[in-house]
Amino acid sequence: MFKHNYQLRVRYGDTDQMGYVYYGNYGYYYEQARSEAIRSLGFTYKQLEGMGTMMPITRMNVKYISPAYYDELLTIETSILYMPHRLIDFAYRIFNEEGKLINEGNTQLIFIDMATKKVTHAPDLLCQALKPYYE
Amino acid sequence: MFKHNYQLRVRYGDTDQMGYVYYGNYGYYYEQARSEAIRSLGFTYKQLEGMGTMMPITRMNVKYISPAYYDELLTIETSILYMPHRLIDFAYRIFNEEGKLINEGNTQLIFIDMATKKVTHAPDLLCQALKPYYE
Amino acid sequence: MFKHNYQLRVRYGDTDQMGYVYYGNYGYYYEQARSEAIRSLGFTYKQLEGMGTMMPITRMNVKYISPAYYDELLTIETSILYMPHRLIDFAYRIFNEEGKLINEGNTQLIFIDMATKKVTHAPDLLCQALKPYYE
Amino acid sequence: MFKHNYQLRVRYGDTDQMGYVYYGNYGYYYEQARSEAIRSLGFTYKQLEGMGTMMPITRMNVKYISPAYYDELLTIETSILYMPHRLIDFAYRIFNEEGKLINEGNTQLIFIDMATKKVTHAPDLLCQALKPYYE
Repeated sequence: MFKHNYQLRVRYGDTDQMGYVYYGNYGYYYEQARSEAIRSLGFTYKQLEGMGTMMPITRMNVKYISPAYYDELLTIETSILYMPHRLIDFAYRIFNEEGKLINEGNTQLIFIDMATKKVTHAPDLLCQALKPYYE
Repeated sequence: MFKHNYQLRVRYGDTDQMGYVYYGNYGYYYEQARSEAIRSLGFTYKQLEGMGTMMPITRMNVKYISPAYYDELLTIETSILYMPHRLIDFAYRIFNEEGKLINEGNTQLIFIDMATKKVTHAPDLLCQALKPYYE
Repeated sequence: MFKHNYQLRVRYGDTDQMGYVYYGNYGYYYEQARSEAIRSLGFTYKQLEGMGTMMPITRMNVKYISPAYYDELLTIETSILYMPHRLIDFAYRIFNEEGKLINEGNTQLIFIDMATKKVTHAPDLLCQALKPYYE
Repeated sequence: MFKHNYQLRVRYGDTDQMGYVYYGNYGYYYEQARSEAIRSLGFTYKQLEGMGTMMPITRMNVKYISPAYYDELLTIETSILYMPHRLIDFAYRIFNEEGKLINEGNTQLIFIDMATKKVTHAPDLLCQALKPYYE
């Protein structure tokens, strides 16, 4: 299975008055991790869009296990759960500096042809890059 | 069951380059709707915090059905699914100006005693206000 | 001079661990106020964009006088400082529930023809609506 | 003068429907750059707060020269303009991947004693670290 680790630093503006990272910000963190996971395959999400495929999100599930705090360096492990067809599912696990699992989630994205606005198949470029991980 | 409707206007800054409301912003929308739902009971989430109980989120699930666009006036229907004990579950349904259901989600929150940082029961004030809806 | 008042409620997610509205969020507040100020003229910023003119920001200045807090109902007074030509300047003053001035700022926007990507004059629709205020 | 360079990647969620980084997000970018500039001095903003000094923003000025786009790797140069006393002024210059200056800004912060909520002098730790740059 394809997995990738990405690190990000919690910003002051990401916290709320509870002193925790605001729950609404995890979707942004997942996007950063997902984007870097794709980059590690040798191309970018931006390039996929440039080739005419956009990938809006259809579902997101988040489990908040423990808070994240300002200035923590979080590690986000991103997995692609299966070979994508019309959908692609990413799973995320976020670890804090002590290696404790503090958040788990997943997002489902759908491939849309930007010209027709219709559902389409995952781009070849992406499928070719992922194939070795799912054989 | 307790239900409440709230309307909000999509901000320019909430959109992304796809022209849709960015998927990561729905948690913010849910918070606004949840906060106004509590206000309609005769007190505020701020007061609950002031009385020593905070309510971090433990889970969020979001289903993105159709995009929301800049300047749309969205209606968010918030429901509290059952009488809260140590947890409280809110469900949300977002409708656009044409009355089309475009997003569904739910969040689970846990009651934490701010002094002890331990899980606690839902505050009496909240339970009393909700009781009539669940008898 | 054209002036307009708009009220908004501070969201939990807008605060940071200092317990204040995070300084980076005021640009969003200004946008909401500006957008409603334009709506009060009888059309929308969205319509101006639909007619082929976009208005990116060229400058923003913000003076933070006192903090804003979660759940406060803020009043934002928006003024358009002069008849727009190629630029339009909005000034903002934010008052809290006690009527105290807590924030002042301004933004300068430039009119861009979306087809040519060149600077253009303020749309007639906007000029006609503003004329009575600057004679 | 003390200067520091920091790189950050534009997130999808930072863009708006114009396809540009939303103007309201630059305050967040400045914070990231400022925070890393302080870290490069051998301690963190978090530690300064932990020692009882908080630093709310009193002013921000932003000049938007050219747009920033999704996935660009921006370089933010942060300068501290003079030895801090009761105030500290940071200036920022943002360059895109082609080395073009696309944004300039500055923020003024004030030192507040968290116990008394009164204005105080810059912490010794910070002054000692900055001294060599202003002699």
